[in-house]
Amino acid sequence: MFKLLKQNNSARLGEFVTVHGTIQTPAFMNVATCGAIKGALSSTDLETINCQVMLSNTYHLHVRPGDGLIKSLGGLHKFTGWSGPILTDSGGFQVFSLASLRKIKEEGVYFQSHVDGKHIFMGPEESMQIQSNLGSTIAMAFDECVENPAEYKYAKASCERTVRWLERCKAEMSRLNSLDDTINKNQLLFGINQGSVYEDLRIENMKEIAALDMDGYAIGGLAVGEPKEDMYRIISAVEPYMPSDKIRYLMGVGTPGNIIEAVSRGVDLFDCVMPSRNARHGHLFTKSGIINLNNNKYERDTAPVDEECQCPVCRKYSRAYIRHLFKAKEMLAMRLCVTHNLWFYNNLMKEIRDSIDNDTFDEFKSHYAELLDTRI
Amino acid sequence: MFKLLKQNNSARLGEFVTVHGTIQTPAFMNVATCGAIKGALSSTDLETINCQVMLSNTYHLHVRPGDGLIKSLGGLHKFTGWSGPILTDSGGFQVFSLASLRKIKEEGVYFQSHVDGKHIFMGPEESMQIQSNLGSTIAMAFDECVENPAEYKYAKASCERTVRWLERCKAEMSRLNSLDDTINKNQLLFGINQGSVYEDLRIENMKEIAALDMDGYAIGGLAVGEPKEDMYRIISAVEPYMPSDKIRYLMGVGTPGNIIEAVSRGVDLFDCVMPSRNARHGHLFTKSGIINLNNNKYERDTAPVDEECQCPVCRKYSRAYIRHLFKAKEMLAMRLCVTHNLWFYNNLMKEIRDSIDNDTFDEFKSHYAELLDTRI
Repeated sequence: MFKLLKQNNSARLGEFVTVHGTIQTPAFMNVATCGAIKGALSSTDLETINCQVMLSNTYHLHVRPGDGLIKSLGGLHKFTGWSGPILTDSGGFQVFSLASLRKIKEEGVYFQSHVDGKHIFMGPEESMQIQSNLGSTIAMAFDECVENPAEYKYAKASCERTVRWLERCKAEMSRLNSLDDTINKNQLLFGINQGSVYEDLRIENMKEIAALDMDGYAIGGLAVGEPKEDMYRIISAVEPYMPSDKIRYLMGVGTPGNIIEAVSRGVDLFDCVMPSRNARHGHLFTKSGIINLNNNKYERDTAPVDEECQCPVCRKYSRAYIRHLFKAKEMLAMRLCVTHNLWFYNNLMKEIRDSIDNDTFDEFKSHYAELLDTRI
Repeated sequence: MFKLLKQNNSARLGEFVTVHGTIQTPAFMNVATCGAIKGALSSTDLETINCQVMLSNTYHLHVRPGDGLIKSLGGLHKFTGWSGPILTDSGGFQVFSLASLRKIKEEGVYFQSHVDGKHIFMGPEESMQIQSNLGSTIAMAFDECVENPAEYKYAKASCERTVRWLERCKAEMSRLNSLDDTINKNQLLFGINQGSVYEDLRIENMKEIAALDMDGYAIGGLAVGEPKEDMYRIISAVEPYMPSDKIRYLMGVGTPGNIIEAVSRGVDLFDCVMPSRNARHGHLFTKSGIINLNNNKYERDTAPVDEECQCPVCRKYSRAYIRHLFKAKEMLAMRLCVTHNLWFYNNLMKEIRDSIDNDTFDEFKSHYAELLDTRI
């Protein structure tokens, strides 16, 4: 399903064929936690901003409105109106970051809902069942995302359990895909590499999950507070052990610079809430660095957010107007800024792909990797 | 500039030609208080929902970001990206409803800004200067909107002062339109009929302002708490004294039923925050009455908001999805609902125009006037 088209050193140009459409990689997934992009973007807008993959959160949708309800309404594609590929996370990350009174056992995790305090159990089978009910294109394995820093001993035990959970996820997904009333009988399942910041654990874990022949492989447990040098070191260490004929996904990353660095280390797929979250606070990406529209100097600035940008916001609205909308507390401010930032990210990925295709990725990287992360 | 095309009894089909485009009447103006429709709608969306006229508030824009700033950036059309007709109110209504420490004198009104407490004076000349800076298509005369109920004696004195203010508005607008650096040298000016709920005051006032040969005439000071029967009675009383060759605008009205009733009494132009405000609370207009999406019965309802509606929201999203967005506190809920309700209003006006054109307005009115205002 993953086709490697070209490489510039470790940077890969590829495509990933799914029943909901083909993803050109490297690609950035746009995060619609509860089935909608925060900042009032609709599924129609996702087409406008050249989104290739929508990512939704299993835990949030399980708690509200309920995956059973979404299944009964025909699945997440029909519910949200987005017909392209959808990746759902496993719920694991939210169980470990949002829920309370958490107890991890071999069978899975016991916790309380952050919405209504309800007692919930989620293990590998439950996570697969929920994601199957949602009918996403790609399901993620249920894993434990250990905190950084984690003790070596704890990280090792957690890794080993996550491998056992992955085997259960795979068996359960296979069973669910064969059922008559399953929404997406071709639902794909990605395994997740863990092992904290310990290279030997990461490599050992990667070898084990590679043997399970998953549809794709993610690197999890990074971008959770460790220095970016650690992140790059781990990617470089683990990459040689990731099957080259499978798509590679770095979870929850990151800044434009992080993404460019990770692409240079062989990663194909990304997601992050940062561009939309920053946008809602008026922090906008441009080809010259990050601007803050709350700054007084933009009060009378008739220029678009980014002169070089071809997004629908930059083609029509000025910095002065959007700044005014923030000051007047108009929701439109957030919508315009989220539209710009996600368009910027999706376009960044296109430029990365073009540069690999033209054998100019290294120049692209040395020009932009630091520049785009600079506050100006 | 106003062309009366056809009448069904008192209901009028017409068109109003302006430098920013021709308005087909009866028409409903979409309210963008601070230069944006609340609910994250952009000026591009206004085209999608068939908005003919955008209405913005002089007082709000004067206080923030300042009309001088907007003028220096090329006026409200350029600032907001909306190229069609814009009507600005005079600021009077907000001075009387929002501002504090208000003192009314012959020269104008002294008050404090609701944003920063700054002392502001606004009289007829200041209101015209601000609206000229904004460069709207249609400016409204600066008037006092008296509360209901008002003492006869107070209402009479206020009416007389408003006529004197109108003469000053007209002279000032004429002067401003002749200046070299004026953004819209063809800015139109509407007079406003006042007189509270007293028919004789209303008629006397209407006669006086009709003599001033304004570009259009508004009925003000209604829809401020009086019973709707009073509103209809006043419209019927004053209508025979409104010049038939001028456009007629009923300010701040209202429900679909109110609008249909007012059209049947000879009104051409409307505005109201109600459809967008109700939408933000999940109260939606349909051809069968008003539904409340917060109601549990819509939890699994895959139908669109209104089966008969051709708006972009009803063509794509279900009641269940939008209800979920409200529960999940996603801004998209408000945007989708405001889009629907404003589309519904703009389409209602089109159906009213079509029915007058087909000589079936009376049937349209008896079928819909009560039905559309019913909660179902």
